[in-house]
Amino acid sequence: MEQMKRTHTCGALGVADTGKTVRLNGWVHRTRDHGGVHFLNLRDRYGITQVVINEDAPEALRTLAASLRMEYCIALEGVVLERPEAMKNPSMITGEIEVSASRIEILNTSEPVPFTIDERSDARDDVRLTYRYLDLRSFSMQRKIALRHTVMQTVREYLTSLDFIEIETPTMIKSTPEGARDFLIPSRLHPGEFYAMPQSPQLYKQILMASGFDRYFQIAHCFRDEDARGDRQLEHSQIDLEMSFVGKDEVFAVIEGMMARVFQRGLGTDLETPFPRISYDEAMNRYGSDKPDLRFDLEIQDFAAFVAGSGFGVFENALAAGGAVKALVVPGQAGFSRKQITDLEDIAKTYGARGLAWTKVARGDSGSITFEGGIAKFFASRAEEIASALGAREGDLLLFMADQWKVAVTALGAVRSRLGHTLNLIDRGTFRFAWIVDFPLFEYDQNEERWTAAHHLFSMPQAQYLETLESDPGSVKGDLYDLVCNGFELASGSIRIHDPALQQRIFQIVGFDPDEAQRRFGFLLEAFRYGAPPHGGIAPGLDRLVMIMAGEESIREVIAFPKTATGVSPMDNCPSPVDEKQLAELGLLLAPRKDQEA
Amino acid sequence: MEQMKRTHTCGALGVADTGKTVRLNGWVHRTRDHGGVHFLNLRDRYGITQVVINEDAPEALRTLAASLRMEYCIALEGVVLERPEAMKNPSMITGEIEVSASRIEILNTSEPVPFTIDERSDARDDVRLTYRYLDLRSFSMQRKIALRHTVMQTVREYLTSLDFIEIETPTMIKSTPEGARDFLIPSRLHPGEFYAMPQSPQLYKQILMASGFDRYFQIAHCFRDEDARGDRQLEHSQIDLEMSFVGKDEVFAVIEGMMARVFQRGLGTDLETPFPRISYDEAMNRYGSDKPDLRFDLEIQDFAAFVAGSGFGVFENALAAGGAVKALVVPGQAGFSRKQITDLEDIAKTYGARGLAWTKVARGDSGSITFEGGIAKFFASRAEEIASALGAREGDLLLFMADQWKVAVTALGAVRSRLGHTLNLIDRGTFRFAWIVDFPLFEYDQNEERWTAAHHLFSMPQAQYLETLESDPGSVKGDLYDLVCNGFELASGSIRIHDPALQQRIFQIVGFDPDEAQRRFGFLLEAFRYGAPPHGGIAPGLDRLVMIMAGEESIREVIAFPKTATGVSPMDNCPSPVDEKQLAELGLLLAPRKDQEA
Repeated sequence: MEQMKRTHTCGALGVADTGKTVRLNGWVHRTRDHGGVHFLNLRDRYGITQVVINEDAPEALRTLAASLRMEYCIALEGVVLERPEAMKNPSMITGEIEVSASRIEILNTSEPVPFTIDERSDARDDVRLTYRYLDLRSFSMQRKIALRHTVMQTVREYLTSLDFIEIETPTMIKSTPEGARDFLIPSRLHPGEFYAMPQSPQLYKQILMASGFDRYFQIAHCFRDEDARGDRQLEHSQIDLEMSFVGKDEVFAVIEGMMARVFQRGLGTDLETPFPRISYDEAMNRYGSDKPDLRFDLEIQDFAAFVAGSGFGVFENALAAGGAVKALVVPGQAGFSRKQITDLEDIAKTYGARGLAWTKVARGDSGSITFEGGIAKFFASRAEEIASALGAREGDLLLFMADQWKVAVTALGAVRSRLGHTLNLIDRGTFRFAWIVDFPLFEYDQNEERWTAAHHLFSMPQAQYLETLESDPGSVKGDLYDLVCNGFELASGSIRIHDPALQQRIFQIVGFDPDEAQRRFGFLLEAFRYGAPPHGGIAPGLDRLVMIMAGEESIREVIAFPKTATGVSPMDNCPSPVDEKQLAELGLLLAPRKDQEA
Repeated sequence: MEQMKRTHTCGALGVADTGKTVRLNGWVHRTRDHGGVHFLNLRDRYGITQVVINEDAPEALRTLAASLRMEYCIALEGVVLERPEAMKNPSMITGEIEVSASRIEILNTSEPVPFTIDERSDARDDVRLTYRYLDLRSFSMQRKIALRHTVMQTVREYLTSLDFIEIETPTMIKSTPEGARDFLIPSRLHPGEFYAMPQSPQLYKQILMASGFDRYFQIAHCFRDEDARGDRQLEHSQIDLEMSFVGKDEVFAVIEGMMARVFQRGLGTDLETPFPRISYDEAMNRYGSDKPDLRFDLEIQDFAAFVAGSGFGVFENALAAGGAVKALVVPGQAGFSRKQITDLEDIAKTYGARGLAWTKVARGDSGSITFEGGIAKFFASRAEEIASALGAREGDLLLFMADQWKVAVTALGAVRSRLGHTLNLIDRGTFRFAWIVDFPLFEYDQNEERWTAAHHLFSMPQAQYLETLESDPGSVKGDLYDLVCNGFELASGSIRIHDPALQQRIFQIVGFDPDEAQRRFGFLLEAFRYGAPPHGGIAPGLDRLVMIMAGEESIREVIAFPKTATGVSPMDNCPSPVDEKQLAELGLLLAPRKDQEA
């Protein structure tokens, strides 16, 4: 049973090892016969080494070698030989040598694999997830998981060097009546009662600040039972941190240093810090998004100045109703077809817009700038002036959006984003970070007819709005901030409220009476009564960070065992039914299914 | 709102800073007035700094200072002064200076605290847990949580240096029908179906080995819904690791290096490595425990040789029934009272023993060794010979246990352990590690009348037992190992089975038919069909490791937010009932409670 233990990995040997007798362990990646010589590529996590079994090898060894199939796990002993110059492969770490095997032991055989363990699998996603253990054997997946490791260790080392303490908060916490997206855990010791799983350690990290741990962090597992949408996972990891006695400048400096270190260590990329800061209003006005992709320009511009007197009712009415008219200059794309413009309009409509107006910048017979097509006739008389103001030139496409301000900028932002991709405006090798600051503290919920917290209930209003919190919630800006990169929200945070009286005012504005506040957050409010310090924090998403660094489009690519969009794991087939006896112990019954009801 | 941000922590200033104007943030730890001068001790995580407000300070400042109460959170500005020699306090980091305050700002007031934030709280456990945020403010708790952080970072740094990759495995996994102690998570997207929470990442780390990650680790959160017993928590953390292409020597070397590094970094203690290895049989025979406390000797000895012809039926019958007779020499304790011996017997009885025989070693009138009391008469004739063989001397107490072997050694081991404590035999400053090896692979379950896995189903039988697995399961030793320290099991592990055929044999011996094996562990068996490598691993418990290092008796002392023995969190009051609407979404109903049933 004692296998031949490796002296080297499959990524270690070079010409300096020529003549050495070595032992390798790994998987058969490829085999081929060439003029009576068996070649095989032996693979492990560290690389691939070419192994030869020559014509003059003992018959038993040659027979064994011939029996090896892809993904057999083997151990072997042999001598390192330098390859003939013509056979050297500079693209492999070990490309200058090969190992001439004198002994081979099969550690485990393999059935034929459902897909080749390749740099880039072309297997379907569900097959890759079902056979995740094979998918993870690819160098591509191994590199991404290793990058994730490097990011995690770098983050921890960096934060530790700044006196942060890593503290594990509980996975089994209090369920709050309104935590509708909390996963629940029934208790066997307390049948009929439940724990909840944390959507984030928010309350606990604030408690830790009240406990005097002035610099806390944790790579926290967070859970959210939400409908499948986009690229979400039921569980995700976040780099959760919180600091006492700070304002946002100190939080930003910590995160900027962290990102610089992580990108340097993980990718060898130097980030420029500090990151630019853009107010929420400015981000929305210029990019139509609070997570703008700054890798390309194509900025939204205000068009209100040109509406009056144009005679174009749609624009005039939008302004009259308190809305906005915005414009986007698409350089050199006057050649866009009606179909292409309609496609963009469809995108705008998914963001609530009623339409997308357009015209094209041309040069008239007189040699002066003019507009052609679309809404040209309303603005033709001021074409030169408008083009100059917007920085548009002959051959450009102009797109316009008139609506409520937020709809107008958001819809045009979505159009901008699509154009960035389809027109290939994005420099893919770059990482463009920015802080988005000065977010509104409240949003009005039309359905519930009340104000709600835009971020969460514990964020501090900016000082200048303290007098008008109740009288004008809609205009209150908070000490909220997001870190964005390449069009993704990478982190979200805020300076928190530490004054119980101010916290009560916020609760009242969102319509929680003191009882409800007590029921939901009683232990935090209680903790704040004993000298809680000023504090703030942030939580970069680990999955998304690694995804961006790896150049991937889905966080599934950087999670070892992800679930599908509907929360299913095809590998181990969960979730699944359980015994009624188990449920009975938990004080639970299965509800009759609708389709089985009388 | 802009508070005075600190220039230094409360543990930073010394005489070298004399004359500097500094700002400090922290909590009022103590206040006192002395001849018109206000003194206050300002505390943060880093230390305590003495602050003075002199008689000649402005009235407003003096009034403010007088209003400060314990645990107010404040910011202040002042000048560092060297204390007069007589007032220096060498026991404080900052004991040579004080800060003469010129400005003080109250950041937050505090209600009177339910207990003093002290080095060592004397508050009751439930009060400490209810006000955990205050309990955590003590230097004692802060040091333990910081030690935990140091241990975690040291472990990760060490393993990373050895090419281990940290990989997060899922918290929401497949529920297996027999996983009776799995916590379950109902799914809203799949009503009536459940995820389970991992009792350990065992299956996933073995899958990772099949994936070619030959060195994996993770500080994993594990969950077990078991009855409250001893010092358990519903969730605990373990340093989970697994390696491919190794035997136990490689696993031991990694762990020995880890412990040496962790104790050096965390406590400044040098551990002697490698750790001794003791077989399970030897540990049981010498110490009556598979987690022996090696900080004291008091070894159990075999007494069988002296039984024949003694005429003592209890001992003779035990041997005749295939049992054992064991002896324990308690040096110098011939003075034990009957009450003291009965107390020891009571301990033995809780381990299944029927009684505890005893006698005392004395010197007879002739000057020769004799026995007095208890079972003296049966062995008096061979007293000299017996005492010599057991290494007993005049004035020693002899204790005896006759029973089935395991009962005899275990019960006497419990007596040994108690004596180690009551006789103060334990050198408290030391850490005595050992590997316990060669465990039995199977145990016979008398209730279920079948063989079960002593550790878990995936552990490798030792090679010499492969032929007799089915014919004599009881004598099979496995490649199982435990790391023990000071009487605690600190880690448990094994070399795993990687051969699907051998795994099936094990399943059959414990009575799983292939269907059941497939249902429970199908995805692991499937993964093993594609060239799984030989592998093994281990999982030191983080909570217990830090507890031992901190010299504590309970893991609650080293967990930031622990639960009580019944799984309750007094701070946030979980578990708790939830809305029926929430349950309905999960496809669940509350079962009628027994006391409400008709």
